[in-house]
Amino acid sequence: MKWTFVNDDFFEEEKAVVRTSDLALQRGYGVFDFFRTKNNKPLFLEEYLDRFFNSAREMFIILPLGREQLKNAIAGLMERNNIPESGIRITATGGYSPDGYSPVQGNIIIQQQPLAQPSKEKFEMGIKIMTYEYMRDLPAVKSINYVMGVWLQKQLKEKRLDDVLYFRNDIVTEFPRSNVFIVTHQGRLLTPGKNVLAGITRKKVLELAPDILPTGTTDISLAELKNAAEAFTTSTTKRILPIVEIDGVEIGDGKPGKITRLLYGQFVKLEDKV
Amino acid sequence: MKWTFVNDDFFEEEKAVVRTSDLALQRGYGVFDFFRTKNNKPLFLEEYLDRFFNSAREMFIILPLGREQLKNAIAGLMERNNIPESGIRITATGGYSPDGYSPVQGNIIIQQQPLAQPSKEKFEMGIKIMTYEYMRDLPAVKSINYVMGVWLQKQLKEKRLDDVLYFRNDIVTEFPRSNVFIVTHQGRLLTPGKNVLAGITRKKVLELAPDILPTGTTDISLAELKNAAEAFTTSTTKRILPIVEIDGVEIGDGKPGKITRLLYGQFVKLEDKV
Repeated sequence: MKWTFVNDDFFEEEKAVVRTSDLALQRGYGVFDFFRTKNNKPLFLEEYLDRFFNSAREMFIILPLGREQLKNAIAGLMERNNIPESGIRITATGGYSPDGYSPVQGNIIIQQQPLAQPSKEKFEMGIKIMTYEYMRDLPAVKSINYVMGVWLQKQLKEKRLDDVLYFRNDIVTEFPRSNVFIVTHQGRLLTPGKNVLAGITRKKVLELAPDILPTGTTDISLAELKNAAEAFTTSTTKRILPIVEIDGVEIGDGKPGKITRLLYGQFVKLEDKV
Repeated sequence: MKWTFVNDDFFEEEKAVVRTSDLALQRGYGVFDFFRTKNNKPLFLEEYLDRFFNSAREMFIILPLGREQLKNAIAGLMERNNIPESGIRITATGGYSPDGYSPVQGNIIIQQQPLAQPSKEKFEMGIKIMTYEYMRDLPAVKSINYVMGVWLQKQLKEKRLDDVLYFRNDIVTEFPRSNVFIVTHQGRLLTPGKNVLAGITRKKVLELAPDILPTGTTDISLAELKNAAEAFTTSTTKRILPIVEIDGVEIGDGKPGKITRLLYGQFVKLEDKV
């Protein structure tokens, strides 16, 4: 049996519910975060919690739990479920709003599911992507709004592509659920700094990379993206995945690049240390 | 006691729930529509249902009910609740998605609440608004995503304004929950045609207006908006409300305009005929 935490108690997954008047159902209004566990230990938990509380604050969501209570709830859920390799999602909604529009005290939901590491095969294959002009509503916030990301799934399936990278006014930003990096032919590692979610894996890569090559946070145009020597995406679920094709243009020689491989190795080592 | 319909049965409002794995809670993914009843009769129901089914289709949401079943559910809810002057909201969510991302068969929720007519005093006062650069994700669709609309409430309160009108690249589009019209100094009634939700009240005004003045659907710039002789907003809840101030600029003489008043009278007559 799998358990879900809602507000102040644990429920069997099928019985974990919220009322239909919640602002998440009425107005898609809520925030969340998502981290992995490895051998029953959360990876980089404090950093995910920092971001979660920041998202809630930025969206004026009133949380029913403080940080310590939330950590206790997470620990309690992990103990009950005992899923050593997992993903844990914390959601905070806008709550049971009497007028169906103004946030009140929110509901907190914590869900856990088994989550295997992305395989080495997946890394070796890399991903093929397309670009699409769009910007999330409040890019610095991890809101639950994925209307565009979910809506674009049909196009991706039809085109047999793995993911979609957003841009705005010719400047690359982020994937619906992950960040982007490029390695230039001049040997610099670059990632967009504006209008993106501050990914935790992205942050770790930005901390690891300067030992390997010059690293910068800057605007990247679509042309610079497609002309990159290497490109990869980072996320909690994907860790680091090479991008081998963008809008039909092969990146590098269509295989995972040398720097991408180095950073991947470093990141796996970092996780092993936790 | 107030009842809510969920999928195939009626529940007391407090017991109407969906599971936390629903895509509306996970990804803000769902559509809805909202119509009024008058003397226990739905106003313009077929047109609202047309739009609802179109929104669901555009967002690949798989409905558990057909149109006749939905109408029966609405009729059943109205009979149980017996709220003659009400608003009825139909929501369809992305459903209990196993992967938390791909739409599956959705959940249908029908909620009813008392809703008084907007008062004549409110009409006479008009509304003061600000403008804001933003476009909804899929403007032709009535999705549940109101992240920006809800988020901007705080600014509106601080500035003591009634609403916010979106624009994109200098072209006016719509309010978070209503449409916009202007009357030009040349005596034409105009409303934006692109990147807006096709409001039912907007449609009725477009049908009524040509008997009174030349009417067009066209791009309107911010300058044209602020220079208008009259401006008003239309929605199911608001019907027709004069806009008397935009970004601190008084519209006309800061009072409801003559054409706005005429159209308001015509629209109320139309409702009385239903």
